[in-house]
Amino acid sequence: MLLRHCLALALAVSLSATVAADEAKPAHTPSPKELLAKSQPQEWRTPDPQNLLVMQLPQGRVLIELAPDFAPLHVANIRTMAHEHYYDGLAIVRVHDNFVTQWGDPASDDNGDKSKLKSLGSAKDKLPPEYTRPYDAKLPFTALKDGDFYAPEVGFSEGFPVARDQANHQEWLTHCYGMVGVGRDIDPETGSGSELYAVIGQAPRALDRNIAVVGRVLQGVEYLSGLPRGTGPLGFYEQPDQRIAIGSVRLAADLPADQRPAIQVLRTDSATFAALVDAKRNRLDDFYRFPVHKVDLCSVSIPVRDAKTLH
Amino acid sequence: MLLRHCLALALAVSLSATVAADEAKPAHTPSPKELLAKSQPQEWRTPDPQNLLVMQLPQGRVLIELAPDFAPLHVANIRTMAHEHYYDGLAIVRVHDNFVTQWGDPASDDNGDKSKLKSLGSAKDKLPPEYTRPYDAKLPFTALKDGDFYAPEVGFSEGFPVARDQANHQEWLTHCYGMVGVGRDIDPETGSGSELYAVIGQAPRALDRNIAVVGRVLQGVEYLSGLPRGTGPLGFYEQPDQRIAIGSVRLAADLPADQRPAIQVLRTDSATFAALVDAKRNRLDDFYRFPVHKVDLCSVSIPVRDAKTLH
Repeated sequence: MLLRHCLALALAVSLSATVAADEAKPAHTPSPKELLAKSQPQEWRTPDPQNLLVMQLPQGRVLIELAPDFAPLHVANIRTMAHEHYYDGLAIVRVHDNFVTQWGDPASDDNGDKSKLKSLGSAKDKLPPEYTRPYDAKLPFTALKDGDFYAPEVGFSEGFPVARDQANHQEWLTHCYGMVGVGRDIDPETGSGSELYAVIGQAPRALDRNIAVVGRVLQGVEYLSGLPRGTGPLGFYEQPDQRIAIGSVRLAADLPADQRPAIQVLRTDSATFAALVDAKRNRLDDFYRFPVHKVDLCSVSIPVRDAKTLH
Repeated sequence: MLLRHCLALALAVSLSATVAADEAKPAHTPSPKELLAKSQPQEWRTPDPQNLLVMQLPQGRVLIELAPDFAPLHVANIRTMAHEHYYDGLAIVRVHDNFVTQWGDPASDDNGDKSKLKSLGSAKDKLPPEYTRPYDAKLPFTALKDGDFYAPEVGFSEGFPVARDQANHQEWLTHCYGMVGVGRDIDPETGSGSELYAVIGQAPRALDRNIAVVGRVLQGVEYLSGLPRGTGPLGFYEQPDQRIAIGSVRLAADLPADQRPAIQVLRTDSATFAALVDAKRNRLDDFYRFPVHKVDLCSVSIPVRDAKTLH
């Protein structure tokens, strides 16, 4: 029994935009890999080094793309902290199952020694809330035609999952898997970017518009999600030696050119991206007997590839 | 800065069923803990030992409740395998980030030594598909009034998240976080329960109605989700020593009474469960400025408690 194939096949997808569910199956059902192999070079973009955070953990390297168009002040502050090596030596302090992995200064924990708090240097310690931004028709937006459970309209802007409410002139980044947000206290002006979290479970969309979202993990999210869960309240690690030390966090722009990560992200306004979404929406192959003909925003993954291995 | 509170407060919820979003905030905003503290004994149920799997991993104990009303033949087969100790010594072979953790016989992998396949004993090696069940108005069903992105109607039956389509006379278990399904090959009759998976990421609802779902992890899902991700294709572990050995899987009914897990699950048709769902739906407190007034099926968690620690 090739049980290895059991779920493998669950991922085989087909391009069936022109094939109704009750028609004959298409002769060829391209996989995401096949669709990506046919992509054109101009469909890929290289993230701006000013927007790319490189976090070194003992488990591996995590790359985070920042979204300055959605949270400009927070992103600027995070750039400053990375530039001044604020995050180096801090730690992952919380892994809350089916919710978030969070990192920051352990001394800021309730039981932490406040006298040991690391200085934020020239970064600001509080910022105005940037939970939504004014709706801007000029911001690129590729709508997801399927709609959304929570927001009037969703889609992708500049590589990020986005919701928008044109009636109320707002748009915002959504809490999908791998999205990165800014921890804060009750006061909306207490977030600075010194404490960040990444979503590692079912999208907690109720957080949307209640907290500043600043970016997305492009690569290495498994080093944040594949960690033992904290056993303290809310998933905080109870013992200091359970925390995972952060080696360093650098802005790619601050690294020598030859040390910058050579990655590319599929443009969310490209034909190949549209084909991938459509394939996921209309799965119809030997494994999928009942394609659902819908796809929700947070189930769409945005491909990233290593530019060095391109042939 | 009490950054420890940043996301802690994200979880503080309020009972605001009677409070409109634009009204004054309620004086008291009970947390899930407070709501549960006021629950009545009869709102909790003890899972039938015939439906409770106890899986011992090096990381800890995982409890899975089986759903015989939705996949009776698969559940019967799994009971047989547990009874005959089939799973003992098998392994977690795959941890696919944001998707599933899967366990079974490593010899069944593509590169496995088929001569070492463990016998299924008196269990069947293939079963008819049980992906949906006929709609039954007599099956308990507590509707989630918010609706669903994928299915005409969703709610909870006997403690499980369920979707149903009355027009087509079908109902089925949904692929929410922690739900357990049966790996199979392309042929729908190749699932047996010898290979199982648990969802550890954004709910892969497109799998609904395409695969047999047999239960839900009640406790210990963090021992399945908090594992290093497999680096092979589809998240399979590439080296045998990366796999996590399963100590044993027992049906609680096969254990001496004093070794059975003493847990209780909140009834999904109870007033306290309804209050928890409503609190999650209408979050309105000092942290949440924009309650979304909706909750999606897979964001609802079903509380489990240790009966031994009750006072």
